[in-house]
Amino acid sequence: MNRAECNDESGVPVRVRLTKEAPMKPLSRKLTFYIPLPTEDDPRSDCERVLDALRPGFGDLRIGFSVMRMLYPACRSQGGQVTATMIWQGDAWHLTRLEAGDTTAFHYGLAADLGSTSVTMELVDLNRGEVVSKATRYNLQRTFGDDILTRIFYGKDQPDHLKELQEATAETLRLLMADLTEQSGVDAGQAAVLVLAGNTTMIHFLMGMDAYPLFLSPYAPVVSAPGFLSARELGLPLEGPVYLFPAKANYMGGDIVSGMIATGISRSEKILLFFDIGTNGELVAGCKDFLVAGAGAAGPALEGGVIRTGMAAAKGAVEHVSIRKDKVRLTVIGKGKVKGICGSGIVDLLAELFLEGVIDFRGVFCPEKSERVEKVEGEWAYRYADASRTVDGQPLWFYQSDIRQFLDTKAAASTMVAYMMDAVGMRFADVDRFCVAGAFGTYINTRSAVTIGLYPDIPPEKIASVGNSSLEGCLCLLLERSHLEEISGILERMQYIQYGAIPNFVETMQAAAAIPSMATQAYPSVKKWVAQRQRGRT
Amino acid sequence: MNRAECNDESGVPVRVRLTKEAPMKPLSRKLTFYIPLPTEDDPRSDCERVLDALRPGFGDLRIGFSVMRMLYPACRSQGGQVTATMIWQGDAWHLTRLEAGDTTAFHYGLAADLGSTSVTMELVDLNRGEVVSKATRYNLQRTFGDDILTRIFYGKDQPDHLKELQEATAETLRLLMADLTEQSGVDAGQAAVLVLAGNTTMIHFLMGMDAYPLFLSPYAPVVSAPGFLSARELGLPLEGPVYLFPAKANYMGGDIVSGMIATGISRSEKILLFFDIGTNGELVAGCKDFLVAGAGAAGPALEGGVIRTGMAAAKGAVEHVSIRKDKVRLTVIGKGKVKGICGSGIVDLLAELFLEGVIDFRGVFCPEKSERVEKVEGEWAYRYADASRTVDGQPLWFYQSDIRQFLDTKAAASTMVAYMMDAVGMRFADVDRFCVAGAFGTYINTRSAVTIGLYPDIPPEKIASVGNSSLEGCLCLLLERSHLEEISGILERMQYIQYGAIPNFVETMQAAAAIPSMATQAYPSVKKWVAQRQRGRT
Repeated sequence: MNRAECNDESGVPVRVRLTKEAPMKPLSRKLTFYIPLPTEDDPRSDCERVLDALRPGFGDLRIGFSVMRMLYPACRSQGGQVTATMIWQGDAWHLTRLEAGDTTAFHYGLAADLGSTSVTMELVDLNRGEVVSKATRYNLQRTFGDDILTRIFYGKDQPDHLKELQEATAETLRLLMADLTEQSGVDAGQAAVLVLAGNTTMIHFLMGMDAYPLFLSPYAPVVSAPGFLSARELGLPLEGPVYLFPAKANYMGGDIVSGMIATGISRSEKILLFFDIGTNGELVAGCKDFLVAGAGAAGPALEGGVIRTGMAAAKGAVEHVSIRKDKVRLTVIGKGKVKGICGSGIVDLLAELFLEGVIDFRGVFCPEKSERVEKVEGEWAYRYADASRTVDGQPLWFYQSDIRQFLDTKAAASTMVAYMMDAVGMRFADVDRFCVAGAFGTYINTRSAVTIGLYPDIPPEKIASVGNSSLEGCLCLLLERSHLEEISGILERMQYIQYGAIPNFVETMQAAAAIPSMATQAYPSVKKWVAQRQRGRT
Repeated sequence: MNRAECNDESGVPVRVRLTKEAPMKPLSRKLTFYIPLPTEDDPRSDCERVLDALRPGFGDLRIGFSVMRMLYPACRSQGGQVTATMIWQGDAWHLTRLEAGDTTAFHYGLAADLGSTSVTMELVDLNRGEVVSKATRYNLQRTFGDDILTRIFYGKDQPDHLKELQEATAETLRLLMADLTEQSGVDAGQAAVLVLAGNTTMIHFLMGMDAYPLFLSPYAPVVSAPGFLSARELGLPLEGPVYLFPAKANYMGGDIVSGMIATGISRSEKILLFFDIGTNGELVAGCKDFLVAGAGAAGPALEGGVIRTGMAAAKGAVEHVSIRKDKVRLTVIGKGKVKGICGSGIVDLLAELFLEGVIDFRGVFCPEKSERVEKVEGEWAYRYADASRTVDGQPLWFYQSDIRQFLDTKAAASTMVAYMMDAVGMRFADVDRFCVAGAFGTYINTRSAVTIGLYPDIPPEKIASVGNSSLEGCLCLLLERSHLEEISGILERMQYIQYGAIPNFVETMQAAAAIPSMATQAYPSVKKWVAQRQRGRT
């Protein structure tokens, strides 16, 4: 699979084109050449002979101790033919490996997204610009807490615990490397470089650092731009360096910066919105001329966390819902009995309840509109799954309080978008593309998301799900080293909005808790859809 | 003891003057300052806050992973007061340590000469420019062979053996650090930096590298200028880096380059000769305008190695000899019975035999001139120690063949000097100072050395014994970082003469085997001393 082309087809902005016009310039280069053997007239050291040979093309190369130890006998065998591996590290090319003979046919890199729940890694053939293999595993940090906060407190002021967290992170990456090796038959440990992105806490844990300061206001990281580190120092069985995507701020981590590279926002002629919705919501608006970013706690509600029957997107979860005349049609992951409902199902359910008039713009049930609305445990609730469909033979209810919770979270997310649009004086009509990152964005029904006001009301073709954009950005950098400069530019140019510091944020948010919003004029399509549905019902 | 002043008194050229006019600029700097705690308006990472604070004075500092891990909680305790340790590494300042509070009162460095036989290390107070403590140990590499060649063959193509040699070298240095700690009460492991010089083979072994290529023509090193390496990577319990003096060529190792820094040859207005006599003889002639170097196998003869009754300068060794009217006066190390004769004793003995007419200018015995000359084991020999003076009650003899051997070695050494003078068109009168490095130079009688033509015939006040100049150069660099530039200049400017490649080297050497030389006109003093002695005898 040619990943670059694949992205092209998927509708995601193309990052790397493997055409003759724009040849790939990967982060890593391998070059084979002949080193003249030393003579009486030329008794330069092996090291000098290698560096002198590479200087015309690579300038003054940096070289570390581990590579010095590879020089001999590599330079004296195979008639002096050697293969050098060099990594562009922004300031200079670094010679990271020297092998005897011609090994240029083997040239791989690794890209990884270090998520707090799961970690994904790809093995990339840098000669062909192809993803050869991909693997995902749960982050072994979960042993020390399912949520990030538990892990942060576990590590706080405890060097031994921080070591455990570091080791669990490294072990996850090692297992992924083993997975890739097994799947592809290519030794991932021989890759030239690993490019990795994660949120700021994940990067701290990978580096064995205390992430407690990230939890306390003003949330200053210990290190925000670690750059290239030695894989060995991080406990990874790799001969080359590891590049860690830098963070702009605690809540604007390397995963977001990487996502910006993937979406191309910072080099786009037109204005993009890049929204990564998860436990936190990170939003970036901009183009090649400006970049504004903000982040806020979107809350786990969006992912089904605080809804009483909510669950992760796994077997038995309702992922899509449609309602017509009190008839509910559910799409269930795994197609069996229903266990609960995941984020994309909740968005559909809310949208359908609203369009069917079962809830009003405030999200309040109108019990007279549906026989499925009943008082359960003292509050109104909607029976979205009948007893016959469920795993335990009990009906599943969507409660008034669930709606409240979800709308609060939705309000936080859409207020971020609205506030930012306002701050930079943009209207939605100015936005050329609304990119939504993450699993949530991949499975969500765009129209439902617009209906409840989670997404802005822009034409559906302008709304793109960019998937794991953190991983994608790593891949982009592996294949095109000039992104390193772009990253520096992003860190310099990006304006960061602290939503917590906005005076009327709470009031604005309350307005945004309506469906789709109190500012209905911003949602003409929703008005139209409501009208269509009403006509359908009568 | 203020070492810089001490050198002044010893007659050795002063390297570092601790005066107000020329303040010391050590390789390492410690600076204490306050890091503002992060605020909502300034949520920069700890790393950025430290680097930003240091930027005005130190430019764009380099920072490694180990220091990143020191940032927290150092930056958040003690009211934000931290102490940074920075090492100037030629290209940039490197932040190598960060501590909470003010630790500037503790600022030490280490200097070490890594010799193949013994290793010497000094602990230096960089705040005062004082050597606090000094220790010497045998090099533990000797387990794998007394001489360098045996060790080279032991390590050849054997990674396990190279690891043993590396470990033995590191262990020697660790023990020396422990010695210094014990002697001074100052933890040498907390020193900011270690500056080390050794010959090319020693540096290869310290780095765990195969030194076999150094043994085979054209003797190209694997690495000649490793620069700053991590102490940890070398197996040393030190938080900072280790600077290894670079070599110009295999036989012009870091110990010689260091010695050049110590003698100041490369910044001298007047012409210096710097001669390091050991198993190899390394010679450098020059001043701030030019530098010419050469090296050749001086052979162990000079240090008493191949003389039948020769021995190292230890208890029982004759270190000085004078002869008048067939009466021999010996100075013996330890003042007890005689076991043998060491290098300085041999030089005296040869000079005295020549001045007394017991040997002629070819070194051939004139048996009629002394009752002490007898045929022993088929060849003429001189009884330099009577049976009553010796440990085993047997007289000690200096044989005709001993003289031949020694004069060949002397010839090699003095030919180097003569050839180089010729090559650069200098006469001895042009030489402002003749610096002799090493233990040999320290104990030798200058007048005897001139008499036999080992040293050029220049006024005795121009001949300086500079002791362990390799160690001295390390100390100089520790105390004055600008020497790093000087080292680069030395490597660039120094012309290297391959004596092996000189067409008539063997013939020239044969002429130089005479006493003091066939070119007697170059030794007017010797002619005068011979005449004085003759008058004394008649």
